[in-house]
Amino acid sequence: MKAIPLILACLFCAAALDAASPPPKPNIIVILADDLGYGDLGCYGHPTIRTPHLDRMAAEGMRFTDFYSAAEVCTPSRAALLTGRYPIRSGMAHNQFRVLRTRSTGHLPAEEITLPELLRPAGYTTGMVGKWHLGVWYFNPDGHPRRHGFDMFLGVPHSNDMDPTAGAPKGASGRPDPNPAWWSVPLYRNEELAARPADQTQLTRLYTEEALKFIRDHKRQPFFLYFAHTFPHVPLFASAQFRGSSRRGLYGDVVEEIDSSVGQILETLRREGLAGNTLVFFTSDNGPWLIMNQQGGSAGLLREGKGSTWEGGLRVPAIAWWPGRIKAGVVNTNLMSMLDLFPTAVKLAGAELPRGRIIDGCDQSAALLDSARSPRRSMFYYRGTRLYAVRKDQWKLHLLTQKGYGQSQPDAHEPPLLFDLNADPGEHFNLSTNHPAVVASLLEEIEAHRATIVPVPSQLESLRQDNGVASK
Amino acid sequence: MKAIPLILACLFCAAALDAASPPPKPNIIVILADDLGYGDLGCYGHPTIRTPHLDRMAAEGMRFTDFYSAAEVCTPSRAALLTGRYPIRSGMAHNQFRVLRTRSTGHLPAEEITLPELLRPAGYTTGMVGKWHLGVWYFNPDGHPRRHGFDMFLGVPHSNDMDPTAGAPKGASGRPDPNPAWWSVPLYRNEELAARPADQTQLTRLYTEEALKFIRDHKRQPFFLYFAHTFPHVPLFASAQFRGSSRRGLYGDVVEEIDSSVGQILETLRREGLAGNTLVFFTSDNGPWLIMNQQGGSAGLLREGKGSTWEGGLRVPAIAWWPGRIKAGVVNTNLMSMLDLFPTAVKLAGAELPRGRIIDGCDQSAALLDSARSPRRSMFYYRGTRLYAVRKDQWKLHLLTQKGYGQSQPDAHEPPLLFDLNADPGEHFNLSTNHPAVVASLLEEIEAHRATIVPVPSQLESLRQDNGVASK
Repeated sequence: MKAIPLILACLFCAAALDAASPPPKPNIIVILADDLGYGDLGCYGHPTIRTPHLDRMAAEGMRFTDFYSAAEVCTPSRAALLTGRYPIRSGMAHNQFRVLRTRSTGHLPAEEITLPELLRPAGYTTGMVGKWHLGVWYFNPDGHPRRHGFDMFLGVPHSNDMDPTAGAPKGASGRPDPNPAWWSVPLYRNEELAARPADQTQLTRLYTEEALKFIRDHKRQPFFLYFAHTFPHVPLFASAQFRGSSRRGLYGDVVEEIDSSVGQILETLRREGLAGNTLVFFTSDNGPWLIMNQQGGSAGLLREGKGSTWEGGLRVPAIAWWPGRIKAGVVNTNLMSMLDLFPTAVKLAGAELPRGRIIDGCDQSAALLDSARSPRRSMFYYRGTRLYAVRKDQWKLHLLTQKGYGQSQPDAHEPPLLFDLNADPGEHFNLSTNHPAVVASLLEEIEAHRATIVPVPSQLESLRQDNGVASK
Repeated sequence: MKAIPLILACLFCAAALDAASPPPKPNIIVILADDLGYGDLGCYGHPTIRTPHLDRMAAEGMRFTDFYSAAEVCTPSRAALLTGRYPIRSGMAHNQFRVLRTRSTGHLPAEEITLPELLRPAGYTTGMVGKWHLGVWYFNPDGHPRRHGFDMFLGVPHSNDMDPTAGAPKGASGRPDPNPAWWSVPLYRNEELAARPADQTQLTRLYTEEALKFIRDHKRQPFFLYFAHTFPHVPLFASAQFRGSSRRGLYGDVVEEIDSSVGQILETLRREGLAGNTLVFFTSDNGPWLIMNQQGGSAGLLREGKGSTWEGGLRVPAIAWWPGRIKAGVVNTNLMSMLDLFPTAVKLAGAELPRGRIIDGCDQSAALLDSARSPRRSMFYYRGTRLYAVRKDQWKLHLLTQKGYGQSQPDAHEPPLLFDLNADPGEHFNLSTNHPAVVASLLEEIEAHRATIVPVPSQLESLRQDNGVASK
């Protein structure tokens, strides 16, 4: 029994040392899955996709039930993540051109201040691996991530279903057994073309190796790593190790490879002694692409998916991990958004928010670290540049609704549809006639928000007339 | 550092003692919720129902993804649980009279051998608290649980929406704010009427107190406790402590009170030193009653609910807990059924299975304790006495389908519908034309099963002509 006081004394010593030195700036890692649905992880209830590493990340950290991406599709969502602003403010949304194409000449405007641009002067090394989709630099070098704050980039410019080859059949990307030769997606290291086509079966592995190298290379200075997976966006490709591994089929294989990648990141942080000083945040850019059938994911009990402003389109899995700082095993039911990562990271890094512009994100550092209540009260649901719905506290009001990709025009609702998302997360029971005062209050919220929107040109509509891909 | 070898020595001593004495017979507790859906617990992904005790039970034990009740409604499901046999074998199913009524004179036949009847001669004290629904003893004492193997009973004969009073409005049980005076459900202690009407707001608390007392009173002998909650079956009632506690509304309040009850059971087992020698199994009798709208639960990503043979009707949450014997934090994806609790409990208790009858359950003790694969290969989905569907491995074949309670006649499918439940747990993509050999194999499975069914009279169709309730 004599050993115990000695051990305790050592612990006290360590604590005293910690208290004496100022806390170092934390490393920040954001891991973004593509089209992963609310119901697609074990810890969110999926019965046949195994995600032991993400489940453990949740058990050691904080899992969110009411976390929203800031758009229903890829390009605007990523613009919101890196700027903390609704994409309508940056011109990164459009009703017809929903996302950037291979022929797009627009990109995230230079005036937009990205998270890595703020973290760099605060002493951070900034790196990105994976899918960018905020500019295609085939014709315009200003679209490249290194023009938007990243010191290092390894990845692809856009979605992996773009840039089909001449031999690709119709509906190739939704096929259950896609052929890698049907796409010609290029892989870049910084500005250099590394491979074209990229071997899509190796992308998750390549990205992961690069991320691990980045972590090890920069472990003595604070770093920001943005790891944006290409998958489970279709076409689905897994490496040989994961191909056929999941009961859920190819979609499950791909998600399980991403889960393994997350496990490698966390394990590397532990081994390198960085776990206690690194915030890792995992989430998805939007909901599951349901029209891809078995090649699309699941929103669990939520209604609809990607492309829609029903809950399944924007509410996404989200897990925060920072051993010793974020309490283990917490399920956080506060309203939060991907918009909030920007001011939260800025706060944790001791940097300053940019002035002279509206930031839609809220600083969630106290919610993460001190169990404080989220300062966020409302969330706006855009589809392109049109505001479809608003959530305030548990109430959601739909002015317009639309099925993910199966419907070309929205249904307008007068009176609007009202749902209590706490009692009815699946949006089954319209309560607008029961709660006219709530409807009125949410309409006011919308008007107040609309008054802050200044029209800007869309970056998504300018296309080269020639097919950029074929000429490249 | 000297203390460590001493501690290790003590541990070795304890292990040696354990090895020397024969292991005592484990206590067995089965906790059954009523109409709780696959998606209704935190650990199954529900965003607004908080179930920290069941989540912890899962983290300390084994959570099942593919666990099935043996029927789509209450009475047949409970008959299957206590006999290990499909309810069609015991006459506890009927196409028109789906469950026992207050005027029913039938009951679980005396020839059926129940789990407590087998455990009693193996040295077990047997107790039941909660909802019976395998016989109504208003007119026939043979319907009582004490005639079917239980030494002790505290509870109610049937569902809590039965026995409405004259003042009950139409659709009373589905109302969001039901009045306790609308029902006259009686509470019995053994054969004695303890209260009529039972105060439904106090039922979960009363049941729990009785269960805790039973555990403490019998801690020196092996015991079997069957704890069958009245809720979240409608009408929904919670005690003052839980009323208004949940973000999910009244349904959530009720589930959170059940969660608290489970927490009290496990905590009492820990405090009394029984945790290491008690198997606790939590599950539900069938899926959520979706037509009750916000007063019904959620099947998560599964299709349909109570009353239907789509997955939402029979696949239910299930958690097994036995610290030190069942490995902690396991998610078991094997095919299992409520039918299996019977032979599994018999095996753990060192009792003998009855001879001269078909037992449909499989012994799952090795799957629970030794990570063995489930011996179960198939599962049959009945609605009343009609076989609607079969699952074999991941394949499910529907001969007939029917919406929960909103449709009076089934749809017949020729060819039958085929789903891959691993790749498509939500049953969206019919594959019958893609896999004719699988269809043929499942049809053979059905024929082989049908050959084992011997017609018996139904216990559910005999009713007294006078209204038993009013005359009582």
